[in-house]
Amino acid sequence: MSLKVVIIGGGSSYTPEILEGLIQRQPTFPVSEIVLVDVEEGVEKVETICQLGNRMIKEAKVNIKLTWTLDRRAALQGADFVSTQIRVGGLAARAQDERIPLKHGLIGQETNGAGGIMKAFRTIPVLMEVAEEVHEICPDAWMINFTNPAGMVTEALLNHSAHKKVIGVCNIPFNMRHSTAELLQVPPEDVLIRFIGLNHFVFGDRVYVGGEDRTEDVFQKLIQKEFDYSPANIMPLDWSETFIKSTKLLPNPYHQYYFQSETVLEKDLKAYEENGTRAEIVQELEASLFELYKQESLREKPEELEKRGGAFYSQVACSLMDSIYNNKEDIQTVNTWNHGTIPELPYDAVIEANCVITKNGPKPITIGEIPAPMRGMIQNMKAMEELVIKASISGEYEDAYNAFLVNPLIQDEKKAKIVLDELIEAHKDYLPQFNR
Amino acid sequence: MSLKVVIIGGGSSYTPEILEGLIQRQPTFPVSEIVLVDVEEGVEKVETICQLGNRMIKEAKVNIKLTWTLDRRAALQGADFVSTQIRVGGLAARAQDERIPLKHGLIGQETNGAGGIMKAFRTIPVLMEVAEEVHEICPDAWMINFTNPAGMVTEALLNHSAHKKVIGVCNIPFNMRHSTAELLQVPPEDVLIRFIGLNHFVFGDRVYVGGEDRTEDVFQKLIQKEFDYSPANIMPLDWSETFIKSTKLLPNPYHQYYFQSETVLEKDLKAYEENGTRAEIVQELEASLFELYKQESLREKPEELEKRGGAFYSQVACSLMDSIYNNKEDIQTVNTWNHGTIPELPYDAVIEANCVITKNGPKPITIGEIPAPMRGMIQNMKAMEELVIKASISGEYEDAYNAFLVNPLIQDEKKAKIVLDELIEAHKDYLPQFNR
Amino acid sequence: MSLKVVIIGGGSSYTPEILEGLIQRQPTFPVSEIVLVDVEEGVEKVETICQLGNRMIKEAKVNIKLTWTLDRRAALQGADFVSTQIRVGGLAARAQDERIPLKHGLIGQETNGAGGIMKAFRTIPVLMEVAEEVHEICPDAWMINFTNPAGMVTEALLNHSAHKKVIGVCNIPFNMRHSTAELLQVPPEDVLIRFIGLNHFVFGDRVYVGGEDRTEDVFQKLIQKEFDYSPANIMPLDWSETFIKSTKLLPNPYHQYYFQSETVLEKDLKAYEENGTRAEIVQELEASLFELYKQESLREKPEELEKRGGAFYSQVACSLMDSIYNNKEDIQTVNTWNHGTIPELPYDAVIEANCVITKNGPKPITIGEIPAPMRGMIQNMKAMEELVIKASISGEYEDAYNAFLVNPLIQDEKKAKIVLDELIEAHKDYLPQFNR
Amino acid sequence: MSLKVVIIGGGSSYTPEILEGLIQRQPTFPVSEIVLVDVEEGVEKVETICQLGNRMIKEAKVNIKLTWTLDRRAALQGADFVSTQIRVGGLAARAQDERIPLKHGLIGQETNGAGGIMKAFRTIPVLMEVAEEVHEICPDAWMINFTNPAGMVTEALLNHSAHKKVIGVCNIPFNMRHSTAELLQVPPEDVLIRFIGLNHFVFGDRVYVGGEDRTEDVFQKLIQKEFDYSPANIMPLDWSETFIKSTKLLPNPYHQYYFQSETVLEKDLKAYEENGTRAEIVQELEASLFELYKQESLREKPEELEKRGGAFYSQVACSLMDSIYNNKEDIQTVNTWNHGTIPELPYDAVIEANCVITKNGPKPITIGEIPAPMRGMIQNMKAMEELVIKASISGEYEDAYNAFLVNPLIQDEKKAKIVLDELIEAHKDYLPQFNR
Ligand SMILES: [Mn+2]
Ligand SMILES: [Mn+2]
Ligand SMILES: [Mn+2]
Ligand SMILES: [Mn+2]
Repeated sequence: MSLKVVIIGGGSSYTPEILEGLIQRQPTFPVSEIVLVDVEEGVEKVETICQLGNRMIKEAKVNIKLTWTLDRRAALQGADFVSTQIRVGGLAARAQDERIPLKHGLIGQETNGAGGIMKAFRTIPVLMEVAEEVHEICPDAWMINFTNPAGMVTEALLNHSAHKKVIGVCNIPFNMRHSTAELLQVPPEDVLIRFIGLNHFVFGDRVYVGGEDRTEDVFQKLIQKEFDYSPANIMPLDWSETFIKSTKLLPNPYHQYYFQSETVLEKDLKAYEENGTRAEIVQELEASLFELYKQESLREKPEELEKRGGAFYSQVACSLMDSIYNNKEDIQTVNTWNHGTIPELPYDAVIEANCVITKNGPKPITIGEIPAPMRGMIQNMKAMEELVIKASISGEYEDAYNAFLVNPLIQDEKKAKIVLDELIEAHKDYLPQFNR
Repeated sequence: MSLKVVIIGGGSSYTPEILEGLIQRQPTFPVSEIVLVDVEEGVEKVETICQLGNRMIKEAKVNIKLTWTLDRRAALQGADFVSTQIRVGGLAARAQDERIPLKHGLIGQETNGAGGIMKAFRTIPVLMEVAEEVHEICPDAWMINFTNPAGMVTEALLNHSAHKKVIGVCNIPFNMRHSTAELLQVPPEDVLIRFIGLNHFVFGDRVYVGGEDRTEDVFQKLIQKEFDYSPANIMPLDWSETFIKSTKLLPNPYHQYYFQSETVLEKDLKAYEENGTRAEIVQELEASLFELYKQESLREKPEELEKRGGAFYSQVACSLMDSIYNNKEDIQTVNTWNHGTIPELPYDAVIEANCVITKNGPKPITIGEIPAPMRGMIQNMKAMEELVIKASISGEYEDAYNAFLVNPLIQDEKKAKIVLDELIEAHKDYLPQFNR
Repeated sequence: MSLKVVIIGGGSSYTPEILEGLIQRQPTFPVSEIVLVDVEEGVEKVETICQLGNRMIKEAKVNIKLTWTLDRRAALQGADFVSTQIRVGGLAARAQDERIPLKHGLIGQETNGAGGIMKAFRTIPVLMEVAEEVHEICPDAWMINFTNPAGMVTEALLNHSAHKKVIGVCNIPFNMRHSTAELLQVPPEDVLIRFIGLNHFVFGDRVYVGGEDRTEDVFQKLIQKEFDYSPANIMPLDWSETFIKSTKLLPNPYHQYYFQSETVLEKDLKAYEENGTRAEIVQELEASLFELYKQESLREKPEELEKRGGAFYSQVACSLMDSIYNNKEDIQTVNTWNHGTIPELPYDAVIEANCVITKNGPKPITIGEIPAPMRGMIQNMKAMEELVIKASISGEYEDAYNAFLVNPLIQDEKKAKIVLDELIEAHKDYLPQFNR
Repeated sequence: MSLKVVIIGGGSSYTPEILEGLIQRQPTFPVSEIVLVDVEEGVEKVETICQLGNRMIKEAKVNIKLTWTLDRRAALQGADFVSTQIRVGGLAARAQDERIPLKHGLIGQETNGAGGIMKAFRTIPVLMEVAEEVHEICPDAWMINFTNPAGMVTEALLNHSAHKKVIGVCNIPFNMRHSTAELLQVPPEDVLIRFIGLNHFVFGDRVYVGGEDRTEDVFQKLIQKEFDYSPANIMPLDWSETFIKSTKLLPNPYHQYYFQSETVLEKDLKAYEENGTRAEIVQELEASLFELYKQESLREKPEELEKRGGAFYSQVACSLMDSIYNNKEDIQTVNTWNHGTIPELPYDAVIEANCVITKNGPKPITIGEIPAPMRGMIQNMKAMEELVIKASISGEYEDAYNAFLVNPLIQDEKKAKIVLDELIEAHKDYLPQFNR
């Protein structure tokens, strides 16, 4: 029996991570074929990855057919899972996303700040096209979307494309679960954090270990700064005792952009002057990673990849596919339709929530009303996401401006226009919808 | 380590069933102590049950201390689980619940018809008292309520008592799961029915086997009358092809009261003339069961108990306690707070839903909007339940009358009064709240 | 300046009523042109009405151009208001709506029972067509729909046609206001009843006179049977003291079908045997009315019309058009979108509510949560309405069957099919959507 | 017949305005008695106002008994309306509200920024006391609350005091209506703006003149800077064309704090260095106003009062009392319970909305879903208001901190603590709840 996985954006430097995962999971998730799909400009990269992958497969002595192609429609024939991890405009575009806002004294924030909004504008139309093809060519396939802003992308596809088997994933909840396990010195599989909110704006409000409530212990350790949750690509958090005690919530690393805006902006500006933006650091990192990947002697995922910031991405993706394939009914945190899980968010919004993972998709576990401290901020972020999605599809300047205006990192109605105009100009090649 | 289960209403004829379950589950759910609690009038029965239970324990060679008492407060000391299965007024009261409405041409319906409303009036105040004691004496204990009307009782306790660790159970969803497994010739643990609604008014809208959607197969078999879901205490269903095809829902056995009202009424009237009501049949059944129980040679649950209609009750209860105790995170169908699971029902209503069972209680899996065919009927039934609960506590005649009026089996505003008055009079010893 | 009113179904026996209203309101609502539109089979009637109308205009010495036509599109040119009062299939069809259910022991109920459902099936497709034409030809015109079931028709047009300027009206709230005024001996314009619910399923829960709460007085008088609210076409109500005291609601005349079902069914059956259905009585009434209308000497609306049951229809319609035209911002009870007025009903449902009437349409006054006694029944009725609308448009048998099943007057899943099949057959000429 | 108005905080410099209003409205709102109530420290002021008021009454030749007292309970006897306009801590406290945040680089914002939060903390407990007294002494009286933050105060009283006849008022909607009338050169009574939101965070989304939609005209004029809506106490607005065209909303003057934060902060800091805060300017203004008030020759409200910023306050208050008294059923914009008016805000929240004003209170006109551009920001502001109210009553530091954290003008979790601590210390005499 065949089991085929297609990786859209297969030339990504992250791909060896997911290939490793698929190789290791063979006993329970017996992939028989993997196709890496990329675009013209990425030919060299995807070829490098494909060769490395084939060396990894050989080394592991498993039976997987791994190929690459630029012909997406051909690749999708017979697919069971389609993973999407693209970067429209590449890291050069990300550099603009960060640099232009900073120039005007704003945090760029590549996932839900000005930068993330622009990334959505570039990405959503492309993935809408992919979703329509999936729906036509392999309608039973599950799309597993990694592409940021993962929450907004997932909502766009679920609500505006014909394909309804779409799940968005992020490594943040997985990281938080694992860091908490380490913190409490218990096995990660025993830890369950109750997550509330949206991708990159998700909070934990309860921590259970084997069903016992250990939330207070975790808060105590965070207050004593015994730990932080930050992955490699985000500067370490440092939350005050008062913040933890008052909100009674576990923030995620991205929350620093919203609750420590001044500090982050200062550090970003300094870093920018000294080393360029994160995008520019990543560009160098990527270059050296691909140098590594090309070495014939390399037959496994190199350790250096972990610095890239996507730690655990493979595990998140492979666990999810495995649980769907085997109808495991275990609990994982993914992006899916709200449908009442949080009554105070729109019914058809996408949220990041604990779900029971089944062969027929993720089924969110009811959360109920959100505590007031974070309710309004989450609602506002969701309203912004809606505006971003609307603008991504409509290409209407007014919708784009409204998204900027509502973003909590942009509180100036006039500066919103200046930065938006400059970003639209900078990315014009990737924003056909805004140039009709 | 001790693990103590208290059974309120331990003198019930059903108790050997649950004792058997607790004995069999020792490896994973190591109960060390069971106390049967009952009231003065039930001394003889509870003693009989206790003796039978101790013979069963001895036979099974397990180490459980089983005793009985009339002192509820004493029994509750140190309890981990409190199961409630009482019958205020006994079967004699049930007979009235059925006979009086029938006399006036109405179905009595002991769970959500006029009979069930009266049962709630008699039961809720008593169980409120129990819940308050549990909250005071063993606040960490989970109350597992079997007492009908189980959904209304659970809502009353969760919303109006101090104790919030209350779960309501019924064997109907379990029966439906097992019957469906038999129908499809698959193991019951592979079957998941998506349940929507309220206790004894729950529908299934999807049937999954190992995550595969098999709903249509089940509908086909029901249409071909290859099967019925009815337990022993309910006359066999016979749903038309049109009903199944149009509603696209699996009804539960109690639905015949609402969708085949005329037929049921006719049969009930006929049965009543010939054999008396179901209560009267059950009274005889019980008498002979207790004769059996008293036989010293009996060292296990007798097969005759299955005719009583409570098949699987033990499994339902023991599975639930086991999963809570072991934080199993498996899916079971219980009565718990809605909290957004079905957005169209009140947030704090109790619904019967698929839940992930954890040490910190059942967590319902989001259902979302109910399809229109059943939405209104479920909403109406919930409104009725609210009125019943209100009246049970307030003892206001107006609240009781409103509950009768809203009940779909009572469509006559004048007859509602006649029947209600007669029932209040008949049960006056058990309805102190209506006689203040 | 021209002000043009088009009356679709202008050959109705009710038309002289509305013509009288338009003549009397000239000072504030200066209609300059009225066109009566009807279908081929109604030529004789509409011509008779048009002649009578012209005699009335002449007598009143006002300047209104009144004509009739079968060309609906031509009539709609330049229309400001389009009133719709059609009867697809005529009174003969209504007779079937009543007779067939009765034959099977069910109340026909021409507005929200089986009869009303069939009427919706016949009517909605025709009025959808009208709405699309209005939207194309006179997009600024307000459609004022009188056609029953007025609530369902209005919801169908608002949610499924392109035209969004549609208001549904009924004389019941107006009647109740006026009867209450008479009861309390105060001017009707001082009385405000807070209405909650749906067309023909609307309750009053508060009665204000000049802003003073007089609800209790009204309840007292109803209890003392000093009054009833029934118009000519509905048999007099007789609500028990207990009903009034417990529900604390003013029922409307149609509520007897739901709360006194047995009594009504008995009377209907008896009446049917003796005099035929209401439809048949009305047929005779109509014939004699048209005899009257033809008399050249008749120059005003004849008193006999009042027996027909549509008392006050003219006032309802003319008040509404007048308030829209003059942006009066007064309060009238009409059928319009819920939009949060009653949070427990679907957002886009049509409800019957007190609205501020403005040039840009009716703006409902917030009601808030409905008291439990009637919440569920109203929710159920709304679910049924949704199913009726769905079936009217889709022509799917399953949708139609579901509507029957959910209807509180039809509690038998098998009989539902029998009656539905017979009705669909009887009306097949008017139900093209069910015969595709 | 007597009609008694009690003014709590009668020594306010605004009082002559409302006295003038009450004098002028005698024909329709025949006040017979007014009592000014104030506290010990305000004796001199309230006496001055009372004397001026009596000169005004004499000049106007009306028959009103005007007195002052420090005995609030005595004053409340027989009251029909109780207006509340207090300033706990006086203008000195307001100066701190503005100065301390500014010192740390934050806008103080006396109504919904840090300053407004502190004002709520000082004010709500005092007005809760007043509400309880009103409920005890004159339970039928309407409380008309002017005290800022008026929306939060109203929600606190409605949801946490026993008195439910409370209405909050603000002159902003009235100003916007009048300014718009001037802009369009039409009578103000013909203008209706559809208001959406919260006190001082309310938007207009439609402007009607005599029911005709004139929204686009108003937008055009705002874009051409032909107008601004700012009252005397707020620096003039200057909204970009893009803002108006994209949001399609009329902002209110206070919105500059949220959408032009940088500009406002800059101006505030500059003004602070040059002239001190607005509080300090107002202190001078007040001193000179009271000099004026003392002049025996002054027999009317002096023109200088208009500079104070409260223009139209009298009209707002008197219109409201008049419409209640006379059950006018006209439309006014006040603060009252949401109850579904805006489904996306909590059911029991207080909103600022267009209401039909009746003898039994304001009845909001349904608004429906808020357009996404402002939905999230309004929801966030409401969540903040809830936290402020909670903290005002609980005196819990955590609640207060959460309110600061959620406030969009305070985006730094550490600075939030510093500023909050300093403000609590500065106001400790007026914050007994935080010092228990
Ligand atoms: Mn992520
Ligand atoms: Mn049951
Ligand atoms: Mn009607
Ligand atoms: Mn204000």
